Order: sequence, then C-alpha cells, then structure tokens
Amino acid sequence: MSDAEKGSVGVGLIGLGTIGTGVVKVLKQNADVIQQRLGFPLELVRVSDLDLETDRGVDLDGVTFDADSEALINDPDVDIVVELIGGFDVARRLILQSFEARKHVVTANKALLALHGAEIFGKAAQQGVDIAFEASVGGGIPILRSVREGLAANHIEALYGILNGTTNYVLTEMEATGEAFDVVLKRAQQLGYAEADPAVDVDGIDAAHKLTLLAGMSFGAQLTHKEVSTEGIRGLLPVDFEAAREMGYRIKLLGIAKLHRDGGRQRLEARVHPTLIPRSSLLANVDGVMNAVVVIGDAVGETLFYGPGAGEMPTASAVVADLMEIAREIRRGTAGRVAPLSYLPEVLERKPLVPLGELFGRFYLRFTALDRSGVLGHLTGVLGENEIGIESILQKGQGEAAQSESGGATGSVPVCVLTHPTREAAVRSALERIDELPDVTAPTRLLRIEERF
Amino acid sequence: MSDAEKGSVGVGLIGLGTIGTGVVKVLKQNADVIQQRLGFPLELVRVSDLDLETDRGVDLDGVTFDADSEALINDPDVDIVVELIGGFDVARRLILQSFEARKHVVTANKALLALHGAEIFGKAAQQGVDIAFEASVGGGIPILRSVREGLAANHIEALYGILNGTTNYVLTEMEATGEAFDVVLKRAQQLGYAEADPAVDVDGIDAAHKLTLLAGMSFGAQLTHKEVSTEGIRGLLPVDFEAAREMGYRIKLLGIAKLHRDGGRQRLEARVHPTLIPRSSLLANVDGVMNAVVVIGDAVGETLFYGPGAGEMPTASAVVADLMEIAREIRRGTAGRVAPLSYLPEVLERKPLVPLGELFGRFYLRFTALDRSGVLGHLTGVLGENEIGIESILQKGQGEAAQSESGGATGSVPVCVLTHPTREAAVRSALERIDELPDVTAPTRLLRIEERF
Repeated sequence: MSDAEKGSVGVGLIGLGTIGTGVVKVLKQNADVIQQRLGFPLELVRVSDLDLETDRGVDLDGVTFDADSEALINDPDVDIVVELIGGFDVARRLILQSFEARKHVVTANKALLALHGAEIFGKAAQQGVDIAFEASVGGGIPILRSVREGLAANHIEALYGILNGTTNYVLTEMEATGEAFDVVLKRAQQLGYAEADPAVDVDGIDAAHKLTLLAGMSFGAQLTHKEVSTEGIRGLLPVDFEAAREMGYRIKLLGIAKLHRDGGRQRLEARVHPTLIPRSSLLANVDGVMNAVVVIGDAVGETLFYGPGAGEMPTASAVVADLMEIAREIRRGTAGRVAPLSYLPEVLERKPLVPLGELFGRFYLRFTALDRSGVLGHLTGVLGENEIGIESILQKGQGEAAQSESGGATGSVPVCVLTHPTREAAVRSALERIDELPDVTAPTRLLRIEERF
Repeated sequence: MSDAEKGSVGVGLIGLGTIGTGVVKVLKQNADVIQQRLGFPLELVRVSDLDLETDRGVDLDGVTFDADSEALINDPDVDIVVELIGGFDVARRLILQSFEARKHVVTANKALLALHGAEIFGKAAQQGVDIAFEASVGGGIPILRSVREGLAANHIEALYGILNGTTNYVLTEMEATGEAFDVVLKRAQQLGYAEADPAVDVDGIDAAHKLTLLAGMSFGAQLTHKEVSTEGIRGLLPVDFEAAREMGYRIKLLGIAKLHRDGGRQRLEARVHPTLIPRSSLLANVDGVMNAVVVIGDAVGETLFYGPGAGEMPTASAVVADLMEIAREIRRGTAGRVAPLSYLPEVLERKPLVPLGELFGRFYLRFTALDRSGVLGHLTGVLGENEIGIESILQKGQGEAAQSESGGATGSVPVCVLTHPTREAAVRSALERIDELPDVTAPTRLLRIEERF
C-alpha cells in the first residue's frame, strides 16, 4: 500500500530518552489536535532504545518496542524516522540508513548537523527524502521555520541569539546574586540545568552548533561550527556584571551572525561569546533557561522569537511540528522537496569569514592591576598610543574576592573600561602590550558589545 | 500552458498604496533571494489602482498598470491576486471574483476576514484555491504561520497580544511623558502613527479584528470580531500609568484569547482592553509601534513573537512570504490545499464565549471622589460588603489636572485601588453602588490585570 493511500502516517522513534519520551507524550496526548489540523493521524508504530527496562511513564501499548533500530528503519510501517539518540557516529549511520531505506528523518541533533550537515543534506536530496530539524535550535521556538518561511522574502542581515539555556541561567544568576561562576554552575547542575560535564554548554560549543544551522538557513551559507569563533562564559567575574550594569548593559552569551555585502562579495561574521547588550533591550531581559533569537531582515526590520530552548515537552513540540509537516507532504505525494536550509542546495556556498580583528565597536576591558598610583596612567597611556578612546572607567576598591578570582597577585584590583568605538585589532595589540606591564598581574578580559537592538 | 510548466509564477496586485508599493519593492529588490529559495521567479505581471498618477517611486516597467482590477483577476498570466485595497464591499467582491477565476489570493485585510472570514474561506475551499493573510496580523511578524505550523502540535491554551502599533505608541508615550491622551494622540497623528480618524485603532477595533483571526488559527474557533469584548484606550489618565507603575505594572492594550476546557465543553474567552501586566515581563517592555504576541501551548509552554506590526516594508515582507508559499504549491501542483485557519474546515466550530463577569483576578479601580474625610471609608465599605479585598490604595493629592480630566467635580481626586483576586461580576456590582455614592463625582474606571507572564 502506498503512503498516500494509508489512513495514517507511521512514525518510528529511535532514542527513548527525555526528548523521545516527550515525543511519545505529545503524539498521544495531542492526537486530537494533530488530526484536526492534518486530517489524518500520526501513528507511533515503533520505538527503539538500548534501555528496555526503565519506566518512562508512557504507554507503549500497540507500539513495537525493542533495541533494534535497523529493523525500525526498515519496518514498512515506518514512514518517518525520528533520531533522538544524539552524538555523532551511530546517529549519522542511522540517519544515512534511513535515507537509503527512503525514510524521511526528523532529528534534534545539532552537533551532528553542525559538523556533517552538508553530507547529510546531500544524501537526503539524493534519495528524495526530507530531513527536518526544528528541535535542534531554540527548543520549542519555531525559529528555523520562521526564517525559512515567515521571513523568506528578506535578505537576512543579522542574527543575535541566546541559544543555550544553561549558560543563560548561569549568567542570570551570577548577575542577580553576585555569586561566582563555580557556585552558580554547581547549583545549575543540582537543578538539572547543567550537565555533569558542562563543557559543551559553558564553553559555547552548543550555541555554536545552533548558530551554524541558523546561519545556513538565514544566509544560504555552508558552514561548520568549527569555523565559528567561540568563547564561553568561564572566567567571567561578579565585577563584570556589576560594571556592565553601571555602564547600562547586561551580559549574555550570544550567537551572532551577520552577512557583509561589499559589492558582489559576501562575507560572513559568525561568533559566539559573552556580549554586553543594552539593558533596555528585549534580548537583555530574556532570563533563566529561556532562549530568544533576534532576526533582522531588510524588509521586515527587527523581529524576536522567544521561548523555552530545551526540555522534554518544548523540544517534543518542535519534533512533532516537523513530523506533521512531513506527514502532510507524504499524503500529498510531494515529500522530499523541502530544501533543508531553505535556500536551494545549488546556491548554498561557503562564504569567507570576517576575522574578529575587523569588528568595530565599543569594547569592555577588565584589567587586573596592582592598586598603586600611576597604574591607571600606564593603562590609559597604552590605550591612547593605540588611538583607543575611553568612554568610562570603573575602578573597584581593593576587593579580596576580585583579586583572587581574577588570578591577580595580592594587592591587585580590577579596572573596568568602556572604550569608544574602535577596531578589535587595535584593542588586541594594545592588550598585548598592557598585559606585559609589570603592574598588570593577570591577563585582561575583553568583552564585545552589541548596541543595535 | 499549465501553471506547473511555466517558468515563473505570476502575481497581480490590486491596490498600490503604502503596502502595495512595499510589495513591489520587495519583489524587485529581493528577487534574488526569492528565486534562490524558491528555484523560480515570482513575477509581478499586473497592478491595478484607481490612482494612476501619483509617483510611488517604484519601477513598473514591463508591468501592466491600469485601473481595471477585474481584467487583472482574469488575466491568464496572473496566478495569485494580492488584495491590498482594504475595506469591505469592493475587497470582498474582488476576492470572490478571484476565487471564481481560480486565482489564489493573498490579503492583509483583517477587517474583512474578521467579519466575513467564514464565507471567504468557504468559497476558497469550494473553488480549490488558497487564501493567505499573514500580513493581516502582526505586520511583519510571522505569527499566523508560527501558530499554524511551528506550534501545530500544541493545544494552544492562551494568547496575549499587543496587536496595534498606534495604541502601543500612545500608551508608551503617555507613560513616558505623563502627558494626556489627546496630546499624545495628536503627536501620533503628526508622526503618521495614527489616522486622522483614529477610532478603529484607539477603540480597540483593529486589535479585535486581529485577535479574531489569531483565535481562529489557534483554537479552531469560528468567531467574528463583533463577539470580542472590546474596550479601547480613551479615558486613560496619566494617574493610571503612575499608579500602575507604583503597583509594579505597565498598561498595554492587549488582545487576549483563552480556551476553557471544562470536560468536553469548550468555551472561548476573547477580549481586547487596556491591561495591567507585570513590569518585568517581556510583553510589558514592547514599546512604541512594535507588536508582540505571547502564545502559550500545552507542550511548548510560553513563546513570544515580536516585530514591527505595521508599515510598508514589514507588511510587504509578510505578503511576499505568503506569495512564496502559494507559488511553491502551485509549482508542485498542490495549491488549494492549505486550511486557512490551520484546523480543517470541518472541525471549525462556534464556541460559546465566556462572559466577562466570570473573569477572576486582581482588578485596578480608579475612583474619582471628593477629597474629604470619610470618602475612603465609604468606598472600601462597599467593596468589603461585596467581599472584595484591597491589596493597595494610592490616593493622589488634590490634582487639578486629574480632577478635570476624569470629569470629576471641583475638589475631586483620583483614588487608585488594587483589589485582591475576585470575580469581575462582584466588582461590577460593587461599582454600580459606588458610582451612586454622593461623594463619587465620575464613573469609576476598571482595568483588568493579567499576571501570567
């Protein structure tokens, strides 16, 4: 029986972890609304997971449940395979096997797509099947779909995203409580907001994965996350939040991508780092584990999309939206025609990246220097020689905490500076000299600032 | 030649006003990205408008431009008709004629759809053509598409929208400057943010139109805007903004819709009115002419969509997104299958409306009473007899401005009260008695409060 004639569209789910369990719940609990919108049911026919014992609190009656993901892929009742095991090798193999079996795939695996996207999208096109991955960026926020469809008539100019809930929680708490990074991270781990090994989140890698996919969708750019300049939130101190607040900013880990058009030449700016943004902006007021993405298009202007960036049910909401879209296409006999990155595959291209040194704007600098007369003069002297103007200086008193946390010697204090607009390259070369001054007892921390919101 | 074989999809535009001109600009200026996403061009083949003289600053070379909208509809090169003349009778006739000519329609005409939606959607289905109207709600924000596709797996529970830029500008300015409504409205008119006849905006009717469409899309509800309880922003005083601020709120004109499920019985809450919302919420920080909609789904939780709610280019961005979606379907041979309200037409149903009296929550009350001893006791006495608790009272001093603006007699002062949670019906019956007290010199103003953000 062909797909088009069947009463329902069959779903096979590989990976019954948190998100997978959420998908089962949404398919069951919201079967009514799914059918009222589609006109036919989405039927969960098969689930595979290595762990067949744990009780996930969901009813799998009538669903084949075993550890055999290859049998699932080849089950003729499965039209769409949902890959939710994460990771690289096994997930990649199962997705490619699904394509070979002419099965459409829905995945939340940003890490895999940010590295092997070109291969995976190419194979899907070759087999004439769809791959959808709304859940991989922004959890429940329909951000990829909004760029792909809702803003499709725009040249997208820039993206600014709070793309990682763990780091946004840590930053929000550090600012609210004045506590140190390690203290807040530990609490996040206890609350289940951070992994035991938090590196992928706190070092900005997860955000870079997501930015890679967003940039592909927005700019038609072929990119891997390894090309995204990535800097995490380790090393931020309570004094940074205090100084930022006094200067009118808040600190957020942003994924930023912009397309530079110099005549016919296009270059891509793609970076993840802690960023100072104006306190009054909406993005600055996105707190806790929530995510948000600002998208600026040449016709629409500034838009913002906000919602829960992770979690069982929000992420499942995005997975099932993808399932519904593909199922509708299957029933129409037109599946396999969606361009995964919205731009036609043949126009996707690698675009040269803009080096960080070219960035132009204000910078926040936190120097750590001995608290004695003349030090400020040395710092500002070197900045002046590099033609870097100073907009404001905040010198925090002899803080024991500050000096030890920042790694400065006894008697060191933080000096926080907001520069006038300048090139990052100029700042970098000034810092090279400054960090060699005898009064400077720890490397200077540079934070970038984005003003356009 | 069939649609599917043609190289491009042809667009006919009726109405070359502000938005129409924007559509021409987007189609021309962004032809490259449109083709890179679609794989074929969208070609503007014909424009009609009664005014053939005014120079709109757009190049119509190669485009048939005349006043004959019926010829446009019947032009075999026109596959999709864009209706941007607004209003009721003519627009309705042209849309229905387009359907009869088997042309798909894109429109921004919320007023028409909020009243005649059922007829228009029915006729489109009957003729097997599509009607799309993303531009009718939230300007450039892809909010309808997000509900229809991105959040399709959810039972939508509630919507809260700042849906009208004119009123949001006026409220933002009244709060920021302390100026009176009339003063700010006049400025909005000078800036082009308000019409010469501002009634449709300031009386909440435009927001009610948009809420009607959003509620249809979100809840599968058949509704006309006449059923939406609608109250505008006239009569708000500077003291209301001041009191709201001190109580921790800001005042926004919100369109609110919620689905109540009592067992199998569904009832719809749909209302537009000035609303106090917590200052710290994102929605409270949407300022000026911008729009935003909070959508709460049972799986996804809280999401928010923000952007410019009006204007030439943002609205054109939404119109062209609709054109692209329909054009893609035309080329696939699957056009005419989109359910305009996302739910299948056969499951759409009229749902009983929840009367305002049933609303439960805190209320803001501004009494206008003579400034003499014992008055406060009378007011609170009547509230107490109706079992309405008082959370806080702000009595503003003998303000000349306040008394004259609120219509109270000389010697009157405003008394602002925040109640404990209660039923609106109880408040209403207390107010009936209070407004008859001899000390009370003008009708009491009641404002509703929404806390869930």
